[in-house]
Amino acid sequence: MSSDAVAHAIRELVLANRILAREDVIDDFGHVSLRHPERKDRYFLSRSRSPVAVTADDIMEFELDGTPVAQNGRRMYSERALHSAIFMARPDVTSVIHHHARSVIPFTVVRTLQLKPIFHMGSVMGAEVPLWDSQPEFGDTNMLIDDLPRGHSLARALGGNRSVMLRGHGACNVGVNLRAAVFTAVYMKHNAEMVLASLPHGTPEYLTPGEVEKTAAMLLSDMPLARAWDYWITRAGYGGV
Amino acid sequence: MSSDAVAHAIRELVLANRILAREDVIDDFGHVSLRHPERKDRYFLSRSRSPVAVTADDIMEFELDGTPVAQNGRRMYSERALHSAIFMARPDVTSVIHHHARSVIPFTVVRTLQLKPIFHMGSVMGAEVPLWDSQPEFGDTNMLIDDLPRGHSLARALGGNRSVMLRGHGACNVGVNLRAAVFTAVYMKHNAEMVLASLPHGTPEYLTPGEVEKTAAMLLSDMPLARAWDYWITRAGYGGV
Amino acid sequence: MSSDAVAHAIRELVLANRILAREDVIDDFGHVSLRHPERKDRYFLSRSRSPVAVTADDIMEFELDGTPVAQNGRRMYSERALHSAIFMARPDVTSVIHHHARSVIPFTVVRTLQLKPIFHMGSVMGAEVPLWDSQPEFGDTNMLIDDLPRGHSLARALGGNRSVMLRGHGACNVGVNLRAAVFTAVYMKHNAEMVLASLPHGTPEYLTPGEVEKTAAMLLSDMPLARAWDYWITRAGYGGV
Amino acid sequence: MSSDAVAHAIRELVLANRILAREDVIDDFGHVSLRHPERKDRYFLSRSRSPVAVTADDIMEFELDGTPVAQNGRRMYSERALHSAIFMARPDVTSVIHHHARSVIPFTVVRTLQLKPIFHMGSVMGAEVPLWDSQPEFGDTNMLIDDLPRGHSLARALGGNRSVMLRGHGACNVGVNLRAAVFTAVYMKHNAEMVLASLPHGTPEYLTPGEVEKTAAMLLSDMPLARAWDYWITRAGYGGV
Repeated sequence: MSSDAVAHAIRELVLANRILAREDVIDDFGHVSLRHPERKDRYFLSRSRSPVAVTADDIMEFELDGTPVAQNGRRMYSERALHSAIFMARPDVTSVIHHHARSVIPFTVVRTLQLKPIFHMGSVMGAEVPLWDSQPEFGDTNMLIDDLPRGHSLARALGGNRSVMLRGHGACNVGVNLRAAVFTAVYMKHNAEMVLASLPHGTPEYLTPGEVEKTAAMLLSDMPLARAWDYWITRAGYGGV
Repeated sequence: MSSDAVAHAIRELVLANRILAREDVIDDFGHVSLRHPERKDRYFLSRSRSPVAVTADDIMEFELDGTPVAQNGRRMYSERALHSAIFMARPDVTSVIHHHARSVIPFTVVRTLQLKPIFHMGSVMGAEVPLWDSQPEFGDTNMLIDDLPRGHSLARALGGNRSVMLRGHGACNVGVNLRAAVFTAVYMKHNAEMVLASLPHGTPEYLTPGEVEKTAAMLLSDMPLARAWDYWITRAGYGGV
Repeated sequence: MSSDAVAHAIRELVLANRILAREDVIDDFGHVSLRHPERKDRYFLSRSRSPVAVTADDIMEFELDGTPVAQNGRRMYSERALHSAIFMARPDVTSVIHHHARSVIPFTVVRTLQLKPIFHMGSVMGAEVPLWDSQPEFGDTNMLIDDLPRGHSLARALGGNRSVMLRGHGACNVGVNLRAAVFTAVYMKHNAEMVLASLPHGTPEYLTPGEVEKTAAMLLSDMPLARAWDYWITRAGYGGV
Repeated sequence: MSSDAVAHAIRELVLANRILAREDVIDDFGHVSLRHPERKDRYFLSRSRSPVAVTADDIMEFELDGTPVAQNGRRMYSERALHSAIFMARPDVTSVIHHHARSVIPFTVVRTLQLKPIFHMGSVMGAEVPLWDSQPEFGDTNMLIDDLPRGHSLARALGGNRSVMLRGHGACNVGVNLRAAVFTAVYMKHNAEMVLASLPHGTPEYLTPGEVEKTAAMLLSDMPLARAWDYWITRAGYGGV
């Protein structure tokens, strides 16, 4: 029987799915997970379904290695391996998002492009965003992170950061809570758009490291996260929920 | 009297029309066809109507050469010639889509531009996309594929590929089933957008041929197609159908 | 008392207002007019109101010189002068549209940019689009065409074409019927977007003069116009009307 | 007890919040204020809430220095300091808007980029738009204008203009009335988009100083503001209000 904390976590995770779909961060194939609020060795993630359509009934519970607690015949995301690997490597992380936000793709395939915070909101993704490439370690693949070895490799590239990019594929963002992870994913997308828009016109002045640190600390706190959440659920059609 | 298989095919074809309109792949003038599930020598296609408004009543049945089985006074797409020609040339193909996706147009008119898979989802359109030009064979025309000679010429340019571009006009995508064709058209559009967004910043690393092959094989299989279909019908307002 | 032809004309004109707003051709300040179907010396145009909100009750009747037949205290577009001047100069024209479509603006202020048909649908705007500049004749103005001298000057620049651009302002499109004018405005916008998207990557191959002529003649005929109209009214929320 | 003038002001301020959200000028974190219609030393501003969700109940009354008249436990925008400082410095200003419109960001970080009126509607932002940078005076900060010293510094940069940009952050616009401020913010956004779209193709001809002055005077008058307001409230879902 699920506790209030679990019921709340699942409700928030469903909203996060809908928000990330509405904000065009996640398309048909991304996903967002949330660590179990009462068991650090488990996490919640939807069954294999597009986030735009995820409901509470779709949320499944997984062991840290990706084994479903109760599969009940449901199909699962093969890429849950990346959630598993990151939750294992990063005890501080409570939520993981994987997406193919269109504006991030150029930064994963043009090696001279750098993704750095260009406006205050972009500070949340971190001062630098590492890039993971499947080729050196795994050669030609189907580009997915669908087993633990690739997941662990990706987690190593992420390191202690809040964001990592995947060559020719997309990105992952993590947060100390669900809202922080969503905030980071949404503003990584916007920051990438603005870097692409600025570069043809000259060299932009990025935020200084000190600005990134102070601004991110301010933004990833309760009040800004609550205001953004309110904004997103209103846009996603859940205002007043 | 129509069989269950035919009724199902028509239902899916109507959804494909609505999806391609919702995803801004097809505008007022594109179309999508589906081979008859029980007769390889016939196919289904809407009467002359914008896909955004197509209903089951609009779907007509055609002989392989484009002759309507029962016209009943309905106006027909003059460009059904391209569907006919491709179905004739490609027995492996079950569905054909013709569209003017905006992001593809630059690749049809700037000869130095190349449309290659830049992210994993783009692998579905194929490692290379041939370009068909009406000028060498037909000179100044109304730019349409509205007779079989032009259709056959286009089918030759398509060859054994999943995609072909038309100079100053648009593109065609084909699939071994309807969902695969829709998937290919949608992601050709997205891949083209991302190549255009990347090129001003440097030379992108495209997927390797091995990556294209493995990733496309994975994506054009049942589970990814079902997930994407679920996503699209939800966005098009048919969730739960 | 209004005839059936007038009632029909007004109904279509209201739909044209809503379509042009929905397709982001016209914003808060554009307008569309229609010559009186029974009196060549009069035309219909909304009172001063944003097209997105125009209803049949807003449509006013004007003498060719812009004098309202029955003002009844309603505020009028000051730029109706451009409709007047074009209807006077062009007896073949039945409908005039003035808009600020965003993609057209760069072509009005960068003198080296050329707006030419880059894909088949763009043929409707004409092989070349002249540019009108208020400076040489009128010096510093409020940029509007709000008196007949400026209207006549603009009509001269339009000449026998279907489209004319206004420096730092927008464009006008005309048609032998209302649907042809709407079609021309919508596809001028799309063609401009695609030229802007193509140019950074190389010199595009524009349609040949022969292609422009044949394709425009085909597109501005009844069947394509009916299909496009069906598409637009569905998108604007009037499907089935 | 609130007068009719106050009730009207609050109603209009709520609409301005919704309009700026609908037009993608303001996102989760911008805000719009309105001076008290009967007390020049007070202004209205929402409690800390995303504009997309603001209702009349959220509007709070502030002393000119940002002290709430009756806080009642509500959380407040920390950046109300910028509204305070501008209302203090500019007795002619009745409304202040702060936003992060995406198209403006490149102009705040690429020093060689200039934001000047490129089409008639852009004239409202002013012939030149000054840029405020927090670094010289305040060093590394959280990028917010969350105390009066930063507010006063920003107000000095604004000077007697209608617009000011904030490096790596966004912009502020002011108006002699609420509709003028909204108009200025919306068209600053559009003008910025069109400058970015034009520059890769050559040097644009901006409006002349005389054109800017005459056009802005015309646009910021009652009739154009009423027409634009009608357009915006219709788009925001409040048509007929």
